[in-house]
Amino acid sequence: MHIDQTIQQMARDARQAAGVVNRCAADQKNQALTAMADLLAQQADTVFQENRKDLKRAQAANLSGAMVDRLTVTGKTIAAMAGGLREVAAYPDPVGTMGETRVRPNGLRVSKMRIPLGVIGIIYESRPNVTIDAAGLCLKSGNAVILRGGSEALHTNRVLAAIIGQALESVGLPPQAVQLISTNDRSAINALLAQDEFVDLIIPRGGEGLIRFVVENSRIPVLKHYKGVCHVFVDHTAELQMAERICYNAKVQRPGVCNAMETLLVHEQVARDFLPAMARRFETAGVTLRGCPQTRAILADISPASDADWAQEYLDLILAVKVVADMEAAMDHIARYGSNHTEAIVTSDFARAHRFVREVDASVVLVNASTRFNDGGQLGLGAEMGISTSKLHAFGPMGIQELTTQKFVVLGDGQVRE
Amino acid sequence: MHIDQTIQQMARDARQAAGVVNRCAADQKNQALTAMADLLAQQADTVFQENRKDLKRAQAANLSGAMVDRLTVTGKTIAAMAGGLREVAAYPDPVGTMGETRVRPNGLRVSKMRIPLGVIGIIYESRPNVTIDAAGLCLKSGNAVILRGGSEALHTNRVLAAIIGQALESVGLPPQAVQLISTNDRSAINALLAQDEFVDLIIPRGGEGLIRFVVENSRIPVLKHYKGVCHVFVDHTAELQMAERICYNAKVQRPGVCNAMETLLVHEQVARDFLPAMARRFETAGVTLRGCPQTRAILADISPASDADWAQEYLDLILAVKVVADMEAAMDHIARYGSNHTEAIVTSDFARAHRFVREVDASVVLVNASTRFNDGGQLGLGAEMGISTSKLHAFGPMGIQELTTQKFVVLGDGQVRE
Repeated sequence: MHIDQTIQQMARDARQAAGVVNRCAADQKNQALTAMADLLAQQADTVFQENRKDLKRAQAANLSGAMVDRLTVTGKTIAAMAGGLREVAAYPDPVGTMGETRVRPNGLRVSKMRIPLGVIGIIYESRPNVTIDAAGLCLKSGNAVILRGGSEALHTNRVLAAIIGQALESVGLPPQAVQLISTNDRSAINALLAQDEFVDLIIPRGGEGLIRFVVENSRIPVLKHYKGVCHVFVDHTAELQMAERICYNAKVQRPGVCNAMETLLVHEQVARDFLPAMARRFETAGVTLRGCPQTRAILADISPASDADWAQEYLDLILAVKVVADMEAAMDHIARYGSNHTEAIVTSDFARAHRFVREVDASVVLVNASTRFNDGGQLGLGAEMGISTSKLHAFGPMGIQELTTQKFVVLGDGQVRE
Repeated sequence: MHIDQTIQQMARDARQAAGVVNRCAADQKNQALTAMADLLAQQADTVFQENRKDLKRAQAANLSGAMVDRLTVTGKTIAAMAGGLREVAAYPDPVGTMGETRVRPNGLRVSKMRIPLGVIGIIYESRPNVTIDAAGLCLKSGNAVILRGGSEALHTNRVLAAIIGQALESVGLPPQAVQLISTNDRSAINALLAQDEFVDLIIPRGGEGLIRFVVENSRIPVLKHYKGVCHVFVDHTAELQMAERICYNAKVQRPGVCNAMETLLVHEQVARDFLPAMARRFETAGVTLRGCPQTRAILADISPASDADWAQEYLDLILAVKVVADMEAAMDHIARYGSNHTEAIVTSDFARAHRFVREVDASVVLVNASTRFNDGGQLGLGAEMGISTSKLHAFGPMGIQELTTQKFVVLGDGQVRE
């Protein structure tokens, strides 16, 4: 069968399966999630074996150490995946929940019921744990899902998908509720992005190149973020020790992720007090600084930041530093170079905190806390499917709720419109 | 200037103006809305004069009576537009409102703040009142808007846009917050749909052809519905007099709109009791019926419904009628031919009502009430920008709230991530 037809058939099957998981009881979904966790543990050796095939190919292809790292499935990875599934099983079921009821003057009772989106397509790279996490979140939220993992993880993803299928069947759910596109043919992505009749949402996770490709080729709505160029602004009213702790954490705790700080903005009134100590602390962690002229007047031995640095997502132990005249200059810089992802201010002044929160355009705006908190788990949403910097539907971390929508329910006793 | 450049400049200006209306106080926006209403009343004669130019061209072009009707601005139209603006001014401001706060174990306080989407593009046909309604709702929700009305209403839309611009300037707001594309060149639409850097959302309002064109050519997210093929299912447990009243209202009260009933489904156990009386009542209103074989066995003199009838949005005094074996058959029919718009059941049985509400996939599902209630005003949302059958972001009538999104606000006292 031609690849386009194969994908269309998968999408059609997914639409049908979506009707079943939409309606099935919470218990049945939770049993499926638990069965997945159990089977993962039982079949760990098979997973390792398949994973070794991917690792062998990765080494042959000279993939970077970081890539190989992300690809590797260990006992710990299995335990984390299984634990994640059990956690999701323990969440309350969002499907069918209803909010407040509004009673209209004519007696109609109007409320909203949460329902699944339908069929979700996830296109991702390297980390095989996304296969399990995405399957778990989509099933719990009553959606069917079509997964397209990276070619480098194909063997691992195939065995994980087989385990998911077994778990679904073991509780009487259609295995078509979670399907893996198990070919490395790139045209499968294009074929998936054209299934707007059967697929309701596409979520790409990976590098900016993959995401731009998906956005440009999709006829289906896409929730995504391209990159995270996140700032911390240290105001002149900041408690400097707190600022130091926050900036250090935002840059160093996990530099390779989208909510790490990439540019530090410092109010000029405190730059001389703050920057030398901060720089020493960054030095101990191996962070390379690149500064504006005013920064370099204080930290003589760092290299200059070019205009390109302000727009850069380093994902590494590199940090651009800029001294700004005031909060307006900081907010202007963020508006110009930020990516609507995560922005933080350190300040002790209420009015300034209030204004920063109100005016800065980002999915998460923080006062006196590290940018690293832009994360579904940290913000109390539970597991997440990624972060959206699109404003439509979801803005910020996407949890189970963001994989659903709401319909209106209207209850009457014979009302007609005048 | 080339049309692409003109549109890009408008989009750029709109983005800048969006920053201003996002931040301005509720009072200033409300003053602008009130000023628009005042100016509309003061300059009614100029509006009539420009409207006559459009009407003259419409007559010369032999537009249908219905089209000319929709195009005509009367004293009543002006009063309705002005009244609508004053109503919107009286709504509470959604921008900056915050929901419940969640306190995390580490003391972080997490909440969400409602913010505007940014720049909204509205592409619509014929009715000039959309120019005023859309401007009012977008301004109130803190968005900038670019309007592209139908070519047949160009003179009227131009004078309305001029009035809006005067009102904005009179309270110190940038007139670029509401801009009209004042050319009939169709390529202006394509140019607008390519401004994904500056425009956040497109809402098309008009015929299915226009909407499909927009969806296929847009790089910007689109909220829309193609059509409303709405059903009423009369269950065998229905109170038949209530069913009659509801079906009559759903079909007859205003047949040319998207939430009117297009197909009536009747449980076979009550078809013989219900259909003859219902048909007589429809006859008095001039409704033409088309029936399935079982319907025609009861109503001998009506013409047969073909398969195409089940998918048809008549927007007219025509109704397809089908007798179904049970509720499953009714729900299957709705799943196959419905448009996810509005679906109603008439029943006196709790379990059946519950199941219909839970399982039917439509933006508004009603029990014992007319489909005509799928409307922002009727459901208590206030004025609406149209109805969405897309599930992402908004599903159902789109009020002011649907023109906004939410960002996370996180308040801490020095928290860092472990």
